[in-house]
Amino acid sequence: MRQDVPLAQASRLLNHGPTVLVSAAHGGRRNVMAAAWAMPLDFEPPKVAVVIDKATFTRRLIEASGEFALMVPSAAQADLTVTVGNTSGQALAEADPPSDKFAAQGIASFAAQRIAAPLVDGCLAWLECRVIAWPDVTAAHDLYLAEVVAAQADSRVFHGGRWHFDDAPPELRSLHHLGGGQFVLPGASVKGRQAG
Amino acid sequence: MRQDVPLAQASRLLNHGPTVLVSAAHGGRRNVMAAAWAMPLDFEPPKVAVVIDKATFTRRLIEASGEFALMVPSAAQADLTVTVGNTSGQALAEADPPSDKFAAQGIASFAAQRIAAPLVDGCLAWLECRVIAWPDVTAAHDLYLAEVVAAQADSRVFHGGRWHFDDAPPELRSLHHLGGGQFVLPGASVKGRQAG
Repeated sequence: MRQDVPLAQASRLLNHGPTVLVSAAHGGRRNVMAAAWAMPLDFEPPKVAVVIDKATFTRRLIEASGEFALMVPSAAQADLTVTVGNTSGQALAEADPPSDKFAAQGIASFAAQRIAAPLVDGCLAWLECRVIAWPDVTAAHDLYLAEVVAAQADSRVFHGGRWHFDDAPPELRSLHHLGGGQFVLPGASVKGRQAG
Repeated sequence: MRQDVPLAQASRLLNHGPTVLVSAAHGGRRNVMAAAWAMPLDFEPPKVAVVIDKATFTRRLIEASGEFALMVPSAAQADLTVTVGNTSGQALAEADPPSDKFAAQGIASFAAQRIAAPLVDGCLAWLECRVIAWPDVTAAHDLYLAEVVAAQADSRVFHGGRWHFDDAPPELRSLHHLGGGQFVLPGASVKGRQAG
């Protein structure tokens, strides 16, 4: 069900505004967090923009590695998304013995194709990203721009270059954060038509 | 039904990833376009990020005025969204006599509170924005960062600092662009709970 997405279609994975997970790894450490503020930035080569707070352990790993993964979690992962968004990878890394969110929360992962960051099992899409350095912008606004160097998606709900949620069970829909751990899922679809 | 949104809550208007309309005005000219690539950038003062192509007439008006409005169109405005996204304000401005999308498409608008850009009637939310200048980033990536200086929303679906689509009729839901004029609307909502 996990299939490669042509890079020319990668922007479509984030086009409808889902909440994402962000993972990174460096020097034997790894982390994953949640982010609602992510969007496509270009079609081809595909690029993305994402806001990652200075206080996060993930940001330290991104700064060290120049890489991160964005993943589109499914509705079945709502609890996981809230949990990794509200726990500290730093605290786990400094515990004795050191741990991480993957081990502590039993989050299954698999290897990425082009970067070191681990990819979370059961997501609907995975985008492997390399940072395009804009250090002043990142320092001022916690904003990272990056190029997407590989992309995969669950072919049950993403095929032919777009999402198909109409026939998908609720657990195969993306999460869109309203606030306070409340998410809305994609529902009915409508076709807009250009006026004559 | 249109009510002011406290600036501290303004990020919530875009948090779930809706497609937006972008309007701008300068020197007696005005325009409106559609953009799927917009997101919050900060909480307070609220800031936003949006991608606006070099080829657009709206961008020329933003460059000249330093201001724009982001608006969250409703599902009832799907045709309007596609239409303003696929027509050229430049061509209308250069016609004889000159016109614009508001006149040509019969788009009703009202005055903003803090900026010159016109606000489109019938949207679900309106964010008035002043550009935070990052000219190198804008030149390289068509990306604008801006501070939100005023915000309003339709209180039937946004109140208490968040969207409430559960009880809303389909036409009062936001549009999330999948591609090719196909949008998905917010459907069921789920609550994520932090693991113990």
